[in-house]
Amino acid sequence: MANVRVAGTGLTAFGASPERTGRDLFAEASIAAFEDSGVSRDDVEAVFYGNFMGELAEHQGHQGPLMAEAAGVRAPATRFESACASSGVAVREAVKRIRTGENDVLLVGGAERMTNLGTAGATEALAIAADDLWEVRAGTTFPGAYALMAQAYFDAFGGDREDLAHIAVKNHDNALPNEKAQYQRAIEVDDVLEAPLVSEPLGLYDACPISDGASALLLTSEDYATDHDLEAPVAITGTGQGGDRMALHDREHLARSPAAREAGQEAYADAGIDAGDVDVAEVHDCFTIAEVLALEALDLEPIGEGISAARDGRTTADGELPVNLSGGLKAKGHPVGATGASQVAEMATLLAGTHPNSDHVADATTGVTHNAGGTVASAMVHVLEVAA
Amino acid sequence: MANVRVAGTGLTAFGASPERTGRDLFAEASIAAFEDSGVSRDDVEAVFYGNFMGELAEHQGHQGPLMAEAAGVRAPATRFESACASSGVAVREAVKRIRTGENDVLLVGGAERMTNLGTAGATEALAIAADDLWEVRAGTTFPGAYALMAQAYFDAFGGDREDLAHIAVKNHDNALPNEKAQYQRAIEVDDVLEAPLVSEPLGLYDACPISDGASALLLTSEDYATDHDLEAPVAITGTGQGGDRMALHDREHLARSPAAREAGQEAYADAGIDAGDVDVAEVHDCFTIAEVLALEALDLEPIGEGISAARDGRTTADGELPVNLSGGLKAKGHPVGATGASQVAEMATLLAGTHPNSDHVADATTGVTHNAGGTVASAMVHVLEVAA
Repeated sequence: MANVRVAGTGLTAFGASPERTGRDLFAEASIAAFEDSGVSRDDVEAVFYGNFMGELAEHQGHQGPLMAEAAGVRAPATRFESACASSGVAVREAVKRIRTGENDVLLVGGAERMTNLGTAGATEALAIAADDLWEVRAGTTFPGAYALMAQAYFDAFGGDREDLAHIAVKNHDNALPNEKAQYQRAIEVDDVLEAPLVSEPLGLYDACPISDGASALLLTSEDYATDHDLEAPVAITGTGQGGDRMALHDREHLARSPAAREAGQEAYADAGIDAGDVDVAEVHDCFTIAEVLALEALDLEPIGEGISAARDGRTTADGELPVNLSGGLKAKGHPVGATGASQVAEMATLLAGTHPNSDHVADATTGVTHNAGGTVASAMVHVLEVAA
Repeated sequence: MANVRVAGTGLTAFGASPERTGRDLFAEASIAAFEDSGVSRDDVEAVFYGNFMGELAEHQGHQGPLMAEAAGVRAPATRFESACASSGVAVREAVKRIRTGENDVLLVGGAERMTNLGTAGATEALAIAADDLWEVRAGTTFPGAYALMAQAYFDAFGGDREDLAHIAVKNHDNALPNEKAQYQRAIEVDDVLEAPLVSEPLGLYDACPISDGASALLLTSEDYATDHDLEAPVAITGTGQGGDRMALHDREHLARSPAAREAGQEAYADAGIDAGDVDVAEVHDCFTIAEVLALEALDLEPIGEGISAARDGRTTADGELPVNLSGGLKAKGHPVGATGASQVAEMATLLAGTHPNSDHVADATTGVTHNAGGTVASAMVHVLEVAA
């Protein structure tokens, strides 16, 4: 089985650039990844690309070939869609493909254009990640769905809005040195508590923003990286995917994410590690409560204790397990199709020592990324390790 | 490398059922595939699903987990989108996955709901498979794009509307015994020539219809099929994928399909066959001219001669190489996300001797399926063979 290396990463700034097309964003990210890697475009054998709502935001489907073209690559291209986990799936399938030995070099990434829809339009478009017949038509939007999950968590395990606020504060702190982040701005717990409620108990600062942006990775086999003298010190050693019922009302427990648990267990087993080996994590904090559920699903916090992790400093930049050093979806931004691959890009640079927050994890060798679709009806987990 | 068997197939009738949801259609197709195969739902390890325009037709993305649920399967699910080749990609990735030995049983298929949009609405939605910035905003729709390709073909190689009409007549004839076909109705050359022009030189009967429908396949490893005494006499032995520039104006020749050529060459090499070994083909005839371009790209007809294949009887049911014995997209229908996997279903039953048209290919051992996205910016080709 060929080992998989992250040979290059490229990210646009995440934020509001409503005039820029998805292809424009992905071109920028892929140019950065090619420059970072030293890989030749001619060596790319396929493009694995994630996008969620291009049909609605840009009247553009069939983005695989379009994005190959934007990246200047002549190779077959496939678009994966799994809501907010779209490029997480692209990473997973690319890892599996390289492992077969069939391909040595893949361009992987994602893009999303959202802010051109406006906040209400983007919220409406995001709703297609939920069950249209049973949730959306009943008025459910994602802030509402995650608010239900938060309330269920509070009811089952305790915790309150202030606990969640510490997650937002932490992730904003982490984003301060990240030039790609949508918000490079510190906030206080009171800012979160005093922000307008979006859907009780979640306020405006419990939610990630609407974002435009793109991410790109050049993934190669270890042999290719060695043969071409690439600087590629980080390997993707584990991949996992989980699935669940689509609608919240079909779940066994509103405050659990079995799809993420399955994905995590598969990824850990695949990498030959366990949760205790994880030194640093990037998890899908579309809302503050989502970070809590992710940590518990990944066995990084015991059930019912994830709520206090940020407040008690366990997941802050200098805590035992720094979480979302990139700023997370909350402060870095969440252009949904780009997010999964961007988490891998952030983790690879964190572990390689080239991220502005690498100092906080100087001894880290093992990181995990967690990317979720909808209310975690789908989840992708990846394990990254500094290669021996 | 594990060999891949088609253990079961399921198709809904293709046609107009505007009141039925995509999940309803896929549930029906998957139930049929489970019944046909004898495979237990509990053995399914993943769902690979193709859909093109659910965001527009049903306000529903994230269909992977939704369709796993519709099929009664608890397993991770991934949605692939490559316009009208969406489930062709799902088949390809499933074949590759089983070959790794990692999975033994995958549920693969696709669905599309279209007629609820009406003809104009569906045509508008289909346009997202073209380049929105450079084609769609200039007024291009797919009938227009394929009309340009037809005109370019006539200019380069000769041929006329009557040649194309023979393709429509042939495919309607083939659909007569196919109970799943949208049109079980014979037509004459004059019917085609006298039908209203849609976009010169293509008339109404040169175009496939707007369709609702779903397809499902149970693909297994050969070992699993043997161990479970499954009736699975047909193997998928070759897979190929090609890509091209998205917009027609960027193509080197409007009447060539290099993406299909690449996909065909890869699939033939993968199966260890050449074009001369192909006994029967299902190709993507969204318009009559598309069948011509496909046959030439797959080296089943010399360049410039595909136009006469139907007229001269080479591709009719009792010709040297029967093409689209299912009725093709033209007469069987084209629920776009379902089409690629449905071609594989039709071919598997043709070769297994269980298709109503199997009598025409009683000695056939090798078939090829060709599924195209947009104006063939993406293409998938599969080779199926009767297992030794």
